[in-house]
Amino acid sequence: MNISQYIHTRGKEMVDLIADYLENIEQRPVYPNVEPGYLRSLIPQEAPEEPDTYEDVVKDIERVIMPGVTHWHSPYFYAYFPTASSFPAMLADMLSGAIGCIGFSWAASPACTELETVMMDWLGKMLKLPEEFIAGTHGQGGGVIQGTASEATLVALLAARSRTVRIILANDPQRPETDITSKLVAYASDQAHCSVERAGMIGGVRMKKIPTKQSNKYAVHGETFLKMIQEDKAAGLIPFYLCATLGTTPSCAFDRITELGPICNAEQIWMHIDAAYAGSSFICPEFRPLLNGIEFADSFNFNPHKWLLVNFDCSTMWDIIEEVMLSVQRHWQIPLGRRFRSLKMWFVFRMYGLKGLQDYIRKHVELAKEFETLVRADPRFEISADVILALVCFRLKGSNEMNEVLLKRINNGKKIHLVPCQLSGQFVLRFAICARTTESRHVREAWRIISQLAEEVMQELPH
Amino acid sequence: MNISQYIHTRGKEMVDLIADYLENIEQRPVYPNVEPGYLRSLIPQEAPEEPDTYEDVVKDIERVIMPGVTHWHSPYFYAYFPTASSFPAMLADMLSGAIGCIGFSWAASPACTELETVMMDWLGKMLKLPEEFIAGTHGQGGGVIQGTASEATLVALLAARSRTVRIILANDPQRPETDITSKLVAYASDQAHCSVERAGMIGGVRMKKIPTKQSNKYAVHGETFLKMIQEDKAAGLIPFYLCATLGTTPSCAFDRITELGPICNAEQIWMHIDAAYAGSSFICPEFRPLLNGIEFADSFNFNPHKWLLVNFDCSTMWDIIEEVMLSVQRHWQIPLGRRFRSLKMWFVFRMYGLKGLQDYIRKHVELAKEFETLVRADPRFEISADVILALVCFRLKGSNEMNEVLLKRINNGKKIHLVPCQLSGQFVLRFAICARTTESRHVREAWRIISQLAEEVMQELPH
Repeated sequence: MNISQYIHTRGKEMVDLIADYLENIEQRPVYPNVEPGYLRSLIPQEAPEEPDTYEDVVKDIERVIMPGVTHWHSPYFYAYFPTASSFPAMLADMLSGAIGCIGFSWAASPACTELETVMMDWLGKMLKLPEEFIAGTHGQGGGVIQGTASEATLVALLAARSRTVRIILANDPQRPETDITSKLVAYASDQAHCSVERAGMIGGVRMKKIPTKQSNKYAVHGETFLKMIQEDKAAGLIPFYLCATLGTTPSCAFDRITELGPICNAEQIWMHIDAAYAGSSFICPEFRPLLNGIEFADSFNFNPHKWLLVNFDCSTMWDIIEEVMLSVQRHWQIPLGRRFRSLKMWFVFRMYGLKGLQDYIRKHVELAKEFETLVRADPRFEISADVILALVCFRLKGSNEMNEVLLKRINNGKKIHLVPCQLSGQFVLRFAICARTTESRHVREAWRIISQLAEEVMQELPH
Repeated sequence: MNISQYIHTRGKEMVDLIADYLENIEQRPVYPNVEPGYLRSLIPQEAPEEPDTYEDVVKDIERVIMPGVTHWHSPYFYAYFPTASSFPAMLADMLSGAIGCIGFSWAASPACTELETVMMDWLGKMLKLPEEFIAGTHGQGGGVIQGTASEATLVALLAARSRTVRIILANDPQRPETDITSKLVAYASDQAHCSVERAGMIGGVRMKKIPTKQSNKYAVHGETFLKMIQEDKAAGLIPFYLCATLGTTPSCAFDRITELGPICNAEQIWMHIDAAYAGSSFICPEFRPLLNGIEFADSFNFNPHKWLLVNFDCSTMWDIIEEVMLSVQRHWQIPLGRRFRSLKMWFVFRMYGLKGLQDYIRKHVELAKEFETLVRADPRFEISADVILALVCFRLKGSNEMNEVLLKRINNGKKIHLVPCQLSGQFVLRFAICARTTESRHVREAWRIISQLAEEVMQELPH
């Protein structure tokens, strides 16, 4: 076989392999049955001197890799939040791999830079973002693709730090910069993702958690925030950055950005909005009100690679001020090199169309509502937080221990996979609709398994 | 066509498309003939409501994308440094896209975490890294895949910052942390990549450039570094981090790590080694001496996605101290989510074998030597820096203006593509062997073009 035949043939074999994998994924146990360290003994300790055959490599996919894979795209996977997977995105990613340009400047690959700008506008318009966020041909704002929400949070914090230092130095040029940075305070909900706290550590600034409570639906309210910043200012500190979350990781709670935004604007505090998971839903008119208050934000980010069918990585971030955008693009983006990621957006948006994407979001929300209904109909269980999108937080009425045992049984069964969260000191089970192929029958089967294991657990444990 | 047929069919069409693109890439002008903003008018202003057909999307690849692509994998591309491209890596990336797991913890996908650890050991052994860098089953050190060298530089700087603050606080617990960080100084060559300076900005620490000169082959020497840190310590500053470069971006210069390492170890300065481009060559015994001094390093990074046939992104980083490694993996890696990137290493290492990879590196170095010989044989030209690997820095003897005009003519011709650098105030042309498919005939053709344009330029301009 010559090299040309080889490429065409092997590529097509791989297409069959991955299509078969995804088509039959629900036959596999969703969670692997291996112990830490399982893989090392299955392969040699060193790379081969002479090439292995392709056949040997392919055989090892089932022997070495698959036994250790958590199947995120199984319709029985309900853990974490979804990670996107669609065939249009995979086709685009193949093309991106072949073009293989590194988009660190316009000249390094004009199409890469330009398609990204236009795709960010397309997506911004789908979300009905304020005009300030759209680049257009003369716009001040615009968007870039980051790798992850963690990077976006960090980039926004760094831009905010830089802006605040500049403002203060303009009025007080003699003040040492380290004196300013040592007094900066950033804020985020106590429900915010751990990457927000880490952004503060990396940027070398104080990060304070704003308390939330169950009676407030785990949302940050303006009143609480205002009190904190007043106290901090009285203590000589400089509030400079708020990371507000729309759709928190534990329970999909929404911070009150219509209250927080005006406070930030009045106090010259940078408001960054992290809607990593929930952001995709804002393309549906019925969920768009959740984004009201965006007009007060300095930057906004969500992950199409979670819930908008664009395979990882694709975390979209918009900024309103051209000057900042430029510094974000040129200096504050953490990696310099980047793949041609906008091809995935282009393929997905065109091959689904806006309506197809909306249908997809709505179907997931309906499946979550169906699961919520099943839980509410069972008096042994309770719902732990409002079900707004496609995440259901629930638990057995009773002790944390009982719920921990239940979750352990569920995951040990390896038929479905869930992860827990803590809400107001309670151990809570999270049921997130994740896979593109999840249907009502999978949700009902999941509930059947949970319900039956609950029966066993309740019989065994005193409650 | 049902969905299953659709997937298999479209995937195979895309395989043919990308294989054809790569097989015929040298027929295309290597650099695009478009003006900034070219793309926006070629596509709609908004995403479609209803789906477009796949045929329309595919047609638009040639109409919209290709005219704006800089073809990094053309054998006539000699700009920047190489970015890797191989079919084994692309096949692995397809598989990675299909598995689509997000490896942020062991449980999120055990195979993803474990294969990465073992592949980092394989590669570390190929480079004959000291035992401290190998994880094995009981090792203290080990490696992780970062996205880019920029991230590795930053992560190392943050770990160094954290270590130094901890050491100082242990002796002087009352000292304010901001007083310490305000006195920290990081160092790097004046030839270091701009991302090193940016890492200092992000980490909020002072970054000093160590001067180099032509007579020292643009390398940082121990003597110069020692003098700087002594002066800085006398001024009350705290030297804490050195980013040494093996293979600088302008001229592929090598900092003297055998001299710098002992100084860093004695002064408790973290030595990070950035060998982004050159690192791949160290798998060949004849180039391994360039890495001597690695035994003094705290961390080491290079990019298999540049020159080791593993498509972007794959930047491999090793650390010697388990404690630091853990903090790197768990807290200091900038993105939390990550693709199953080690599959690319596994496929490439197995399907090429160590010998195949060595042959590949050697061939590129030989092609560079061939080009160097052509330049040296022409009395109009001079070589501007030692040719150690596959980069040749050269220029017309004479004014910068003349060389700028020459480069402009070269790139306007769009048959070959080069970028310049500045060395000791001189405008220099960089000729880097980049594509996997570059052969002697392409190099000779490139020289023919350069030589002929030089003739034209010299006739037109006074010299």
